[in-house]
Amino acid sequence: MPEFKLPTPDAAAYAAARAHQNQLTKPTGSLGMLEDVACRFASWQGQAVPQLPKAAITVFAADHGVTAEGVSAYPSAVTAEMVKNFAAGGAAICVLARQHDARLEVVDVGVASPLPVLPGVIISARVAPGTRNLAREAAMTQAQVDAALDAGRAAARRAVEAGAGVLVAGEMGIGNTTPSAALICHFCTLAPAAVVGRGTGVDDQALALKTRIVEQALTRLPAGADARRVLAEVGGLEIAAMAGFYLEGARLGVPSVVDGFIAAAAALAACAMVPGLEHWLLASHRSQETGHQAALAHLGLAPMVDLGLRLGEGSGAALVLPLIASALQLHAGMATFASAGVSDKA
Amino acid sequence: MPEFKLPTPDAAAYAAARAHQNQLTKPTGSLGMLEDVACRFASWQGQAVPQLPKAAITVFAADHGVTAEGVSAYPSAVTAEMVKNFAAGGAAICVLARQHDARLEVVDVGVASPLPVLPGVIISARVAPGTRNLAREAAMTQAQVDAALDAGRAAARRAVEAGAGVLVAGEMGIGNTTPSAALICHFCTLAPAAVVGRGTGVDDQALALKTRIVEQALTRLPAGADARRVLAEVGGLEIAAMAGFYLEGARLGVPSVVDGFIAAAAALAACAMVPGLEHWLLASHRSQETGHQAALAHLGLAPMVDLGLRLGEGSGAALVLPLIASALQLHAGMATFASAGVSDKA
Repeated sequence: MPEFKLPTPDAAAYAAARAHQNQLTKPTGSLGMLEDVACRFASWQGQAVPQLPKAAITVFAADHGVTAEGVSAYPSAVTAEMVKNFAAGGAAICVLARQHDARLEVVDVGVASPLPVLPGVIISARVAPGTRNLAREAAMTQAQVDAALDAGRAAARRAVEAGAGVLVAGEMGIGNTTPSAALICHFCTLAPAAVVGRGTGVDDQALALKTRIVEQALTRLPAGADARRVLAEVGGLEIAAMAGFYLEGARLGVPSVVDGFIAAAAALAACAMVPGLEHWLLASHRSQETGHQAALAHLGLAPMVDLGLRLGEGSGAALVLPLIASALQLHAGMATFASAGVSDKA
Repeated sequence: MPEFKLPTPDAAAYAAARAHQNQLTKPTGSLGMLEDVACRFASWQGQAVPQLPKAAITVFAADHGVTAEGVSAYPSAVTAEMVKNFAAGGAAICVLARQHDARLEVVDVGVASPLPVLPGVIISARVAPGTRNLAREAAMTQAQVDAALDAGRAAARRAVEAGAGVLVAGEMGIGNTTPSAALICHFCTLAPAAVVGRGTGVDDQALALKTRIVEQALTRLPAGADARRVLAEVGGLEIAAMAGFYLEGARLGVPSVVDGFIAAAAALAACAMVPGLEHWLLASHRSQETGHQAALAHLGLAPMVDLGLRLGEGSGAALVLPLIASALQLHAGMATFASAGVSDKA
């Protein structure tokens, strides 16, 4: 991946938006986090009253060699089956994309079993037929990591070219909470027991196995290892693609809404690669998965909703798109104390 | 207020909806609270796959004699000024109603200063020019409480007749966190220090004063006092109207989304009047106001979003309407494991 710098959000536009918020007919600060969302969009768009952005959702799909160890409650074949479900419009993220009139694209970056040519939303950008088993060896080569990052960057460019002003990355990859837990442990310096969770719903025995696998895989990584090296050792193709997607979106001046556990792992890797990316990210929800909260805290992000979600696909990020729209419409559409003739604080 | 019984949500429809959820192409339970929202709408509508309801928002406005004590950061005149702002479409709740295509009505149940005839959404159902000062005497007579309850019930009937399948009650009343705190203390048996908060943003001195006022007013109420008597002693006109609104909605088989601190106080009063109402309520957000979480817990409700809101007007409840829509559209629109040919749990 070539070196690149990210633009800096516009601090003057942020300050102008904050001053505007304080004139709106409501107690100062009473819209809580929505006020900050509006001001951050102001800083991203470089204008005190930001426009309502069109949303684009990209779901990256790939398989994981580590599923051979029995770390998931669902068989690996589900990854490909769900890609077909995305194509047919039957998955959760399809329903949410329709509800929110968001562009939806699904990118196959490494589904194990060959997929038929699928209509509509499916893009093929296969790097490998899944990762190798991170319990025994590096999940990817460095070249595979770079190819997956590039697949993510290309997807972000397509979304932005299609007019998106806010991006959502989602994922589908049976087994991917295991590499995500390893990444979060590494980047946040946390013990696996504090991060590894039940994913799609494994039992106590599989949870203990998953934790041991993450512990052992992490011993292959020196502290302070380069983020690309970390992704190669314990990452995933779709996770690397999401990292590339966030980075390219930010490079083009378009923020991303971070979904759950896997998305947070991708965001941590991306921030380690290009510091400052965190200024282009919004958190969506607090996932049920152990360790998600710690990952968000490390990113300096606070989630908007707390719905006990653990679905993936970008669903949690898609769910908050109307809250972002509310933040921006309230910012642009409310009267001011002066315009409405309402008395301000005594 | 006449005696009345509430219908019982349909347990068979709830169970059928839950069975349907478990067939959808996602890990079991992975949509968290949204699954329960869909199943509860099934129980309310008596069908396994509920229809997307139209929403109606009613904002009740009234003034509070206790503002004479200096318990609010804003002057009492703001209540009437904000009603004019509602009429002009400039308030937060107006923006949200437009965004969500929800019916909006504002009911004056007791604004202190006379209002001009206002166009459109404002309904006059004035019971009194505000309450008396609860720091010194009962806020209302029993007849005033009953009239306010009736104004709320009539508003719910208008909303349901207009086609609403989900209701939001909001409020505007400078000073109304003081009576709400007193109601929450009484119905949840909590000490004022654990419930009284800063409302629109008072300083430490006013917070201490507010707490003392609530403590003293509560001494006039015997434990186990009738809920109508409690409302008369320490309540508010708009709070009683909200209680009547929730009760009449439920009587007509239409659930309500509970907003923040004041709404929770009204819901507690309504549940005390007619037990079982809690089965017709959904919580929306966790407010920043002290004691809100305790009130929701007492109602057995869990909030969907945590945005640090403390605005009122029904804004927090209006904000979650798209999340409810998502819950219902996911429930109705997702493929099943069988229909999509996706493998279920191993």
